[in-house]
Amino acid sequence: MACRSRITPVLRRASLAGLVRTAPASGASRTALRCLSTAGPRQLRASGPSMAKFTTDTYPDIKRDERFTQITPEHVQFFRDLLGKESAVIDGVTAEVAADDMEPYNGDWMRKYRGHCKLVLKPASTEEVSKILKYCNDNMLAVVPQGGNTGLVGGSVPVFDEIVLNTSRMNQIRSFDDVSGILVADAGVVLEVADQFLAEKGYIFPLDLGAKGSCHIGGNVATNAGGLRLLRYGSLHGSVLGIEAVLPDGTIVDDLCKLRKNNTGYDLKQLFIGGEGTIGMITAVSVQCPQRSSAVNVAYLAVESYEKMQQAFKEARQQLGEILSAFELMDLRSQQLVQRVRSSKSPLEGEHSFYCLIETSGSNSDHDAEKLGNFLEDVMGKEIVADGVLAQDETQIRNLWSQREGVPECLGHWGGVYKYDVSIPLPDMYKLVDETREKIDAAGLRGDSDEFPVVDVVGYGHMGDSNLHLNVAVRRYDKRVEDVLEPFVYEWIAKVNGSISAEHGLGIAKKNYIGYSRSETMIALMKQIKNLYDPNGIMNPYKYV
Amino acid sequence: MACRSRITPVLRRASLAGLVRTAPASGASRTALRCLSTAGPRQLRASGPSMAKFTTDTYPDIKRDERFTQITPEHVQFFRDLLGKESAVIDGVTAEVAADDMEPYNGDWMRKYRGHCKLVLKPASTEEVSKILKYCNDNMLAVVPQGGNTGLVGGSVPVFDEIVLNTSRMNQIRSFDDVSGILVADAGVVLEVADQFLAEKGYIFPLDLGAKGSCHIGGNVATNAGGLRLLRYGSLHGSVLGIEAVLPDGTIVDDLCKLRKNNTGYDLKQLFIGGEGTIGMITAVSVQCPQRSSAVNVAYLAVESYEKMQQAFKEARQQLGEILSAFELMDLRSQQLVQRVRSSKSPLEGEHSFYCLIETSGSNSDHDAEKLGNFLEDVMGKEIVADGVLAQDETQIRNLWSQREGVPECLGHWGGVYKYDVSIPLPDMYKLVDETREKIDAAGLRGDSDEFPVVDVVGYGHMGDSNLHLNVAVRRYDKRVEDVLEPFVYEWIAKVNGSISAEHGLGIAKKNYIGYSRSETMIALMKQIKNLYDPNGIMNPYKYV
Repeated sequence: MACRSRITPVLRRASLAGLVRTAPASGASRTALRCLSTAGPRQLRASGPSMAKFTTDTYPDIKRDERFTQITPEHVQFFRDLLGKESAVIDGVTAEVAADDMEPYNGDWMRKYRGHCKLVLKPASTEEVSKILKYCNDNMLAVVPQGGNTGLVGGSVPVFDEIVLNTSRMNQIRSFDDVSGILVADAGVVLEVADQFLAEKGYIFPLDLGAKGSCHIGGNVATNAGGLRLLRYGSLHGSVLGIEAVLPDGTIVDDLCKLRKNNTGYDLKQLFIGGEGTIGMITAVSVQCPQRSSAVNVAYLAVESYEKMQQAFKEARQQLGEILSAFELMDLRSQQLVQRVRSSKSPLEGEHSFYCLIETSGSNSDHDAEKLGNFLEDVMGKEIVADGVLAQDETQIRNLWSQREGVPECLGHWGGVYKYDVSIPLPDMYKLVDETREKIDAAGLRGDSDEFPVVDVVGYGHMGDSNLHLNVAVRRYDKRVEDVLEPFVYEWIAKVNGSISAEHGLGIAKKNYIGYSRSETMIALMKQIKNLYDPNGIMNPYKYV
Repeated sequence: MACRSRITPVLRRASLAGLVRTAPASGASRTALRCLSTAGPRQLRASGPSMAKFTTDTYPDIKRDERFTQITPEHVQFFRDLLGKESAVIDGVTAEVAADDMEPYNGDWMRKYRGHCKLVLKPASTEEVSKILKYCNDNMLAVVPQGGNTGLVGGSVPVFDEIVLNTSRMNQIRSFDDVSGILVADAGVVLEVADQFLAEKGYIFPLDLGAKGSCHIGGNVATNAGGLRLLRYGSLHGSVLGIEAVLPDGTIVDDLCKLRKNNTGYDLKQLFIGGEGTIGMITAVSVQCPQRSSAVNVAYLAVESYEKMQQAFKEARQQLGEILSAFELMDLRSQQLVQRVRSSKSPLEGEHSFYCLIETSGSNSDHDAEKLGNFLEDVMGKEIVADGVLAQDETQIRNLWSQREGVPECLGHWGGVYKYDVSIPLPDMYKLVDETREKIDAAGLRGDSDEFPVVDVVGYGHMGDSNLHLNVAVRRYDKRVEDVLEPFVYEWIAKVNGSISAEHGLGIAKKNYIGYSRSETMIALMKQIKNLYDPNGIMNPYKYV
């Protein structure tokens, strides 16, 4: 096949019209595009049901914990006096509040969860958080820590009348050391703001995800978000160097270490990473940020089977080695739905069972282009990959990424999505999607017209992390669909020793299913930690373990 | 300067006789050499005092905890019955044991710490560890978990008559998945054995350190070892995916996750990483192992000042980017001592204030050689680097690494070493070495003849991690030296917000100094965790926090 010069790997082939050499693209501009392509949680509300059912209706078995006090005007006055600013308190206890003002804090963006919260507090400092929590703990007032409220498991919205502690006013970058790359920032800094700040310094935030324009880094850390860069930069358990957090009794955990190495005692901050706000509230984080790569290349490839996809992944890892920064899987159906919603065309002609997006990030664009060119020539020569396109400029990079990043948004087009975010050993990973679709079909629930609740069952995700997003796009939430899905999906995952929550966390959605991924001993040890730090149980109740 | 072809960066310069293009070298063979060059703990005993002072003499303020039971013949019989095998029990309680048989478990390799242990147990399974710990907990018998006993802070040897629980018989690799790169292995597997196993599969253990031929991976994880690859592969908090551990009450913590992403509850395993065996004993670990790089290059450079060293580091990070795998600092004195002990010559002519070792690891040797060649040309052109040599084959790579890895071993030549392993923000990092030397000199303690206790004060370490090893080589341990060093060193580090333990841990050496790096609140929270898991305090007492 292909004639290839040593440095500019321009592959030519009848079916590969769009495949040309990539130009280096700055991460910063890719970032800009990502924002455009991911509409952001709020916009999704435009389509589908206007307001979600109350969580208390969806989960009638959950009863309000009688230990918690009802909020009184006196409580509200205390918070008003403490926070001073009018805008720091949204008070539905002593006053009428327009639904539009309260709803963004009570409901999640997927319209699956909705609480009865009547009081939102927006502290501006760690000291204010400390005083609020101490008061709540002393008065048995339950609270929900909340960042950008972009979660997928109902973890950041109340169930009953818990007070929302929102981090949006704690949004300062505290310091950045441009020799070590260590960033210290308030919990309420928006991920994209942090990343753009870093881009100007030649650094990158070690985490990236579709909701970056809205989510807060405190929430990212509290939920141990995984996202698109984990393959390259590892998990937050490694890249978060320090945390400042407030315990329910008001104690400030001052562990905001700015050193890569610090072996002086138990690494307590790790309990807050992925703790989902159940033992304390993160108020600031210290993060080790890698240098930003000057050269970014993106290829979008078509593959005929999941077996070949695994081969392509192995080859990519071997041949692209240290520059591989993403290997994202998308099935045909996920791509067809994106194109249907957007009335757009596929980047590739014809239909193929699977697609993947490969990103490389490196310090030398010639070297990276050569590695990627060699890789593409090799996998196409071996007929592992059927077709492909290589972005040649920033616009094309953005467009290819939007094929992957647009999936969650487009799936919501018909009204709702049942989302499962799971870790499964690679060889078995995609089987779950096929088997779930078969079960939905056997129950007669999937079809093209309104009488069928299910639009389609699709799979996509982070192949590099064995992390599958099994999504069931629906026209409405329907008990019959739920009965097919659960516990079937969880049992399937337990059978292959997977995880029922790869990166989205437990929240309220998976609280009752943790037994599929964790032993009784582990769950008991977790409850012991919860009781140690939050003996009154005021932190984010009714959720997690 | 330099004529340079595009692909083979052969730099030519009068002073750079040895600087030629590197050939790719497999990590496996580098590994083999490392073993030769680091003599290993035991051999160091040949020189210097034949036996260390008892820790109880060095630290007369530490009193035996009266709650602990004295070991009786009945206890010994229980353990004999449980473990079966004769070789699994070294019994100095009911029998005479040759000093040579007990000493390796009672004393550390630096001859600084020595306990009064009379019973060593070598369980072969997690279940045996569980039964031992439960029995010890029920009978108030104190224990010290011990791996390869290569620690530097006295954490793995007893102080009084604690029972040693040694992991050497738990040495099996349990599983390896060559698609995901996830290794599951017993705690007692020697680090080098694990790494060689991985080398055959094309993978690498994400940790490397001088003692790799003796240390156990369980001990590495228990002490959160940092080492030579942290710059590239991050800390064990990120790369350890799961842990199996036994709590003092015999509970088996089965958290041996084999998934890159698993957000299902508090990440309890993190408490055991760096917990130094004080809340439980690690019996197995699951580790995410990166792919081994096919191309490894090593350069050894001379730099005239610490300011220029910082510039060289910044340039290396920028220009070598994703392939930079080590940037190790060594001062002139550290190199002179190595050459004196070995009667060898420096790889470079003349004397320069500082040296650094730069390693790159990548997937394409041509690309890597070009990047490194460009970098060297650039930093020499800018006169940041004064001189340098680039290894051209595996033997040269080994020889250059031995200039760095040989430092700790050679410093022990005269009898002993006061070792400080600290994290300090880069701009201030080396100042500590100069100021310490000035203080030692002002006290008249350093000189070339036997009347002076101090041979020299040197600094070296992991520049890429802001991690300095301040070492004071001595002819004998001397109270006057200690009085100059402490608390001076710790106060100095606290002043610049550094860490008194970057990677070596606390053990007994730093137990009393943690207040220089941690607040009272943090120390109280740590003690709370200790009391939660080990209410009887039997796990590795008299140490840590």
